Amino acid sequence: MKTDDLIIKTLRENPSKPVSGELMAHRIGISRAAVWKRISRLRELGFNIEGGASKGYILCGIEDLIRPELIGKKLETRFVGKTIIYRSVTGSTNLDALDLAAKGASEGTCVISDAQTAGRGRLGRSWVAPAGGSILTSVILRPKLSPQTATLLTLAAGVAAARAIHHVTDLKPWIKWPNDLFVGNRKLAGILTEMHAEMDRVHFVVVGIGMNVNMDRKSFPSEIRKIATSLSIEARRTVSRNQLIATLYHELEAAYVRLVEHGAKPIIAQWEELAKIRGKHIRASLVNDRKVYGTAIGLDSDGALLIEDRNGKIRKITAGDVEVTNEPPEKE
Amino acid sequence: MKTDDLIIKTLRENPSKPVSGELMAHRIGISRAAVWKRISRLRELGFNIEGGASKGYILCGIEDLIRPELIGKKLETRFVGKTIIYRSVTGSTNLDALDLAAKGASEGTCVISDAQTAGRGRLGRSWVAPAGGSILTSVILRPKLSPQTATLLTLAAGVAAARAIHHVTDLKPWIKWPNDLFVGNRKLAGILTEMHAEMDRVHFVVVGIGMNVNMDRKSFPSEIRKIATSLSIEARRTVSRNQLIATLYHELEAAYVRLVEHGAKPIIAQWEELAKIRGKHIRASLVNDRKVYGTAIGLDSDGALLIEDRNGKIRKITAGDVEVTNEPPEKE
Repeated sequence: MKTDDLIIKTLRENPSKPVSGELMAHRIGISRAAVWKRISRLRELGFNIEGGASKGYILCGIEDLIRPELIGKKLETRFVGKTIIYRSVTGSTNLDALDLAAKGASEGTCVISDAQTAGRGRLGRSWVAPAGGSILTSVILRPKLSPQTATLLTLAAGVAAARAIHHVTDLKPWIKWPNDLFVGNRKLAGILTEMHAEMDRVHFVVVGIGMNVNMDRKSFPSEIRKIATSLSIEARRTVSRNQLIATLYHELEAAYVRLVEHGAKPIIAQWEELAKIRGKHIRASLVNDRKVYGTAIGLDSDGALLIEDRNGKIRKITAGDVEVTNEPPEKE
Repeated sequence: MKTDDLIIKTLRENPSKPVSGELMAHRIGISRAAVWKRISRLRELGFNIEGGASKGYILCGIEDLIRPELIGKKLETRFVGKTIIYRSVTGSTNLDALDLAAKGASEGTCVISDAQTAGRGRLGRSWVAPAGGSILTSVILRPKLSPQTATLLTLAAGVAAARAIHHVTDLKPWIKWPNDLFVGNRKLAGILTEMHAEMDRVHFVVVGIGMNVNMDRKSFPSEIRKIATSLSIEARRTVSRNQLIATLYHELEAAYVRLVEHGAKPIIAQWEELAKIRGKHIRASLVNDRKVYGTAIGLDSDGALLIEDRNGKIRKITAGDVEVTNEPPEKE
């Protein structure tokens, strides 16, 4: 991982002339064959590296590089993003942030990466994102909240991401419970919120956000091509990742502070408005593999999804997976 | 830590004849001076090591050694304690268990230690326990519960510990919310429950239990001598730690399975009975340093403590510290 990061760093420092395999090998302290192997792998991750061992390597698509110093200039926050750890390639920004938090990193510390080799999503799933076109960032928070209330942070993060996207691109993504962002029926962003807590005290929370920004349809792996989209596809223009990250941090801090200071109500109201959830037909798969069908009526005060089944019974969904269907609920 | 563990291991393997400093140094691969230094430190932790560098060292008080193989023989559980990792000395059994759980240790894996160099209690406090007389154990659970429901595990652990003590010693400790065990106004045991979770899915929980078993008043550090007690003091006899650990694991598994299968109600009912909480005068210090006075009326369905203040208003305590006082609540 560290070697990959060093290779990208070297290429980023030489945006206008190719770096020979020999120079790269010498600088990093590995063999030329190892450089070639690493470059192949980095290309598989989605980095647009042109050239070869003899001609030298050059990183293309450089106009939208993530630059922490640029983000810092655009930042209007009190604590989120004041410390940014950038890694070109890492296993998972959430794992990095959890590790940093356990070692005492301060509230608001952010990890950003261009590519993850083991990106993770909700419910133990993986998160696939071609390098160079994504926002992959994890934010460390230390809320003085009980674990029960802290679970609302995941809704707050969904609200923040939707608002940041709207602010920068004018797009209006909707939120699928609890916090996937969609345009139409294609997924734009996902959020994985993890916490470490005592039973009545949160030690820290890591909010991880994966967002498809500048990628065309064909740069998505074939298995997700039909169900994924990006901001550049939807907005029909390249979107500045540095600007979007700064706006995202601003919105995240605002939503977080609102939750801590004013409790669940304002966040839940914002979420319900952005999700346009009321009246939608829902098929929920619970953690125990049972299914529940119904019509969404909103969120409970603890962030659970409330749906009314065909028999008029209110069901409360606290965990699991939700699909929005076109058919009204049938009898179970 | 590892060296300390090796020294105690060597002494445990030689219960009847002293081990010379030279042999010890040779076996562990450190100098004789280092052995002497380590032995001094182990004595400070409470290990009863007699002898000296020339006469050789011998571990006394050996009749109640913790022996995982003995615990295994007494065990009547399905999964708790089926794997036991024993360390004579460690930093904190909870940290060990959190680390093992993150690396994939199976549900029910237990860590036991005779002495902690960095024992931890609730709300970031330390937990002090002289070596050789305590039960210090941490149990890894992987409940299919939401984080909201998993917080009830801390009450379940309190119930399990109180029941195990009663079963083995006939003592009837009471529980102070959320889960400290007392006899009279002296503390007998504390529980630190930590979890790692997504917002709607628990990855793992570590239940750490520290219990004073065989120690007399003078073996407590002076700063806690007046507020702590042990089972041997209260029951006026030595209590088998191996038996008590096996019973504790049995009760913990039972309480855990009950919570997962039957929800909060039975655990809350058991807890309220053991805590004899109703009608007690309570002074609660909240996380934000505010104080609440009132008369306890029981637990809410999420495990929060409900108290009625002097004005008849019901207050819900979800986090913080609770004192039982003799005075009825005054106006705030």
